Amino acid sequence: MSNHKNVPYRIYLPEHRIPKQWYNIRADLKEQPAPMLNPGTLQPLKEEELYPVFCEKLAKQEMNDTDRYIDIPQGILDFYRMYRPSPLIRAYCLEQELDTPAKIYYKFEGNNTSGSHKLNSAIPQVYFAKEQGITALTTETGAGQWGTALAMACAYYHMPLTVYMVKTSYQQKPYRKNIIETFGAKIIPSPSDTTNAGRAILERFPGTGGSLGCAISEAVETAVTTPNTRYVLGSVLNHVLLHQSVVGLEAKEAMEMYGEYPDMVIGCAGGGSNFGGLIAPFLRDRIEGKRDTRFIAVEPASCPSFTRGRYAYDFGDTGKMTPLIKMCTLGSDFLPSPNHAGGLRYHGMNSVLSKLHVDGIVEAEAVEQTAVFETAVRFSRCEGLLPAPESSHAIYTAVQEALKCKETGEEKTILFGLTGTGYFDMAAYDAYLSGKMTDYIPTEEDLQKGFDGLPVV
Amino acid sequence: MSNHKNVPYRIYLPEHRIPKQWYNIRADLKEQPAPMLNPGTLQPLKEEELYPVFCEKLAKQEMNDTDRYIDIPQGILDFYRMYRPSPLIRAYCLEQELDTPAKIYYKFEGNNTSGSHKLNSAIPQVYFAKEQGITALTTETGAGQWGTALAMACAYYHMPLTVYMVKTSYQQKPYRKNIIETFGAKIIPSPSDTTNAGRAILERFPGTGGSLGCAISEAVETAVTTPNTRYVLGSVLNHVLLHQSVVGLEAKEAMEMYGEYPDMVIGCAGGGSNFGGLIAPFLRDRIEGKRDTRFIAVEPASCPSFTRGRYAYDFGDTGKMTPLIKMCTLGSDFLPSPNHAGGLRYHGMNSVLSKLHVDGIVEAEAVEQTAVFETAVRFSRCEGLLPAPESSHAIYTAVQEALKCKETGEEKTILFGLTGTGYFDMAAYDAYLSGKMTDYIPTEEDLQKGFDGLPVV
Repeated sequence: MSNHKNVPYRIYLPEHRIPKQWYNIRADLKEQPAPMLNPGTLQPLKEEELYPVFCEKLAKQEMNDTDRYIDIPQGILDFYRMYRPSPLIRAYCLEQELDTPAKIYYKFEGNNTSGSHKLNSAIPQVYFAKEQGITALTTETGAGQWGTALAMACAYYHMPLTVYMVKTSYQQKPYRKNIIETFGAKIIPSPSDTTNAGRAILERFPGTGGSLGCAISEAVETAVTTPNTRYVLGSVLNHVLLHQSVVGLEAKEAMEMYGEYPDMVIGCAGGGSNFGGLIAPFLRDRIEGKRDTRFIAVEPASCPSFTRGRYAYDFGDTGKMTPLIKMCTLGSDFLPSPNHAGGLRYHGMNSVLSKLHVDGIVEAEAVEQTAVFETAVRFSRCEGLLPAPESSHAIYTAVQEALKCKETGEEKTILFGLTGTGYFDMAAYDAYLSGKMTDYIPTEEDLQKGFDGLPVV
Repeated sequence: MSNHKNVPYRIYLPEHRIPKQWYNIRADLKEQPAPMLNPGTLQPLKEEELYPVFCEKLAKQEMNDTDRYIDIPQGILDFYRMYRPSPLIRAYCLEQELDTPAKIYYKFEGNNTSGSHKLNSAIPQVYFAKEQGITALTTETGAGQWGTALAMACAYYHMPLTVYMVKTSYQQKPYRKNIIETFGAKIIPSPSDTTNAGRAILERFPGTGGSLGCAISEAVETAVTTPNTRYVLGSVLNHVLLHQSVVGLEAKEAMEMYGEYPDMVIGCAGGGSNFGGLIAPFLRDRIEGKRDTRFIAVEPASCPSFTRGRYAYDFGDTGKMTPLIKMCTLGSDFLPSPNHAGGLRYHGMNSVLSKLHVDGIVEAEAVEQTAVFETAVRFSRCEGLLPAPESSHAIYTAVQEALKCKETGEEKTILFGLTGTGYFDMAAYDAYLSGKMTDYIPTEEDLQKGFDGLPVV
């Protein structure tokens, strides 16, 4: 461990280097993804049509594909600097453990109390709602990372919040419920009988453990039927990826301080926000022909929207209430099996990333969770950091790539996103360590059921 | 939140400013505490008498009251720099919430995966054992912070570890067990039938939830009866306070970067290691007559060793196997009620801090847990950080002192130690939020039972 005495393990950029602007990758895309459609008229959605659901500033950001940089308001920066810049870490111990010539770096977003990168978007979403005079918010949460982050941001800005939590997670993770309540938010397990969407899903799938798609339906319905209330979402949408660009911007600057540029950038992908935020500034270099970096999204084999989904227009939610989004999707009717990596259990994928995947710029891999947990335990023991199951998908692929370098002798530079900590996932670690964890891969028939529900556009 | 735009929220010292030496406050004491005694001969203990229990380097450090600075080996610094320097944070949001003229700073030791300051001593204890060729370690853990930290250090240095975990905590906190196992250690709930000490305690107090004192007995017995095995302890002893001096050294340097010197330094106190480490360099200034800083140790009203204990020779463990230590103690027979702030449930207190308390230099306060949790929730919502129950004792007193400043208009500078995070204490938060938490204050009779068991010296 002592052959690198003068090289830092972690680079914390100084506080004044927190990005003052978000980077909007869409301004640099050579071709834009297909527009969102109004599901009734099948016409491209207008910004104003989003206003009943999202506050206006976020709706504008969602549609904005022209401004390369968008200023971050001071009221958001004041909160960012309570936990940012997050560290970029050189995984010396992991490299030694793997005996690889590869250089492995990770951007660690778990060093804030919410425990994940989700806080980066929770803060602006609450801030802009507050600014507009919105008096309550609704959202959904799967694994609980987004719910926790949003509850923290709502506590800070004094904004009431109702969280629809996927029932499986609610039952598997009582402490997630407790921490969200500690920050003052109200939690309802989804599907619930508090909404039409919830009641309909319960009738169709009695006893279901729920999914992100159906929790979204409930949260959206509550927002649009409650005065002066809006809905906020922790991933999938373009404005969320925009906010997460702080991850990539800091990572790129810190890599430069190490004198490095990654040969590949790896991230886990559920709805795509962390992956999209991490790769954005590196992707720009590739689009501009300056670099030939590989971008690898890692998803669970149990919910393989990139690797086994269709590129099609689909609803963002199970209740089929949202606008239609062109994306890699398993179909909004696809109900993933209860899988411990709850945060990656979403049927679709951000539309920009979906297009980049279809265009061959973003690669994707689906991995099984027992292999992911094996890597997570190995990583925790040498790097002294307990990763979230979601993040561990990225670690898995980073390790595989480093082992390939060992075979070939190539000294590649690998950057991956370590999005969060696993403190609330100990039941899953316990299942793995005690040999009770199983893998689940949907059959072609399982997938067909999801595809059968795709809208005809 | 925006009236302090140009002042940092957090100061992370640069990596090269991690202390290279521990500071040994005993070298600067005007009067040494009474020596440890051999319980058989009642003669001052010799260093060699500790060798069967502790590895030699640690035994030397335990006895060392002459060297002001002790070099930290490179193999320890390599690990320290994976998570140190820890941040010093200005609690702007808390100040605003309290509307106080006081300036509140906290040294946050929870930003490593073990979640607490305990890692600072776990690392050297495993390192020195490894260096001596020891092949296995034993320890006890109460709330689980020490067990987690030690398991992490043992994973890093490849050292087998058995942890005796206080049964109450083992039952209340299954996920603590899981994380310790994730890092590869073996856990046994204490009291257990695997040791003579455990069996004796079970016979005397059937159904007991255990205590730190009795888990220590079991761990020590296993260490001394197993070949090439040693025992390690997470608090109370002088060498643990020595290691924790990194907390105070960094805090002092970071305070200087803010241009500040604290009027008071506040820490929670179970065995005293975090408090002793935090105050050490400030205490030196007071001993040398340079400053008049107040030092306030905060303990739970349920286990009030400073405020209601006796200053007497006592055993460190319930099984009465350890050397005799002159300290503030409730008696090694005192079995604290099951209290959520598990890490502060120890009958005694470090001998140096005990003497400083008796000499009027260190103040102490006992506080009730419902009030502590009320403060913890308030703190979490404005500072965006979920504190451990133990740490919240310090927050409570810091808030009280800040509110006094509000009354008097004094602009005092308060520094407190925020030793760890509460992710594994959500059941306690839940008990508080749902109104199920109660306070417990031992009666005079309860205390008398403990005092009756004090050895006659």
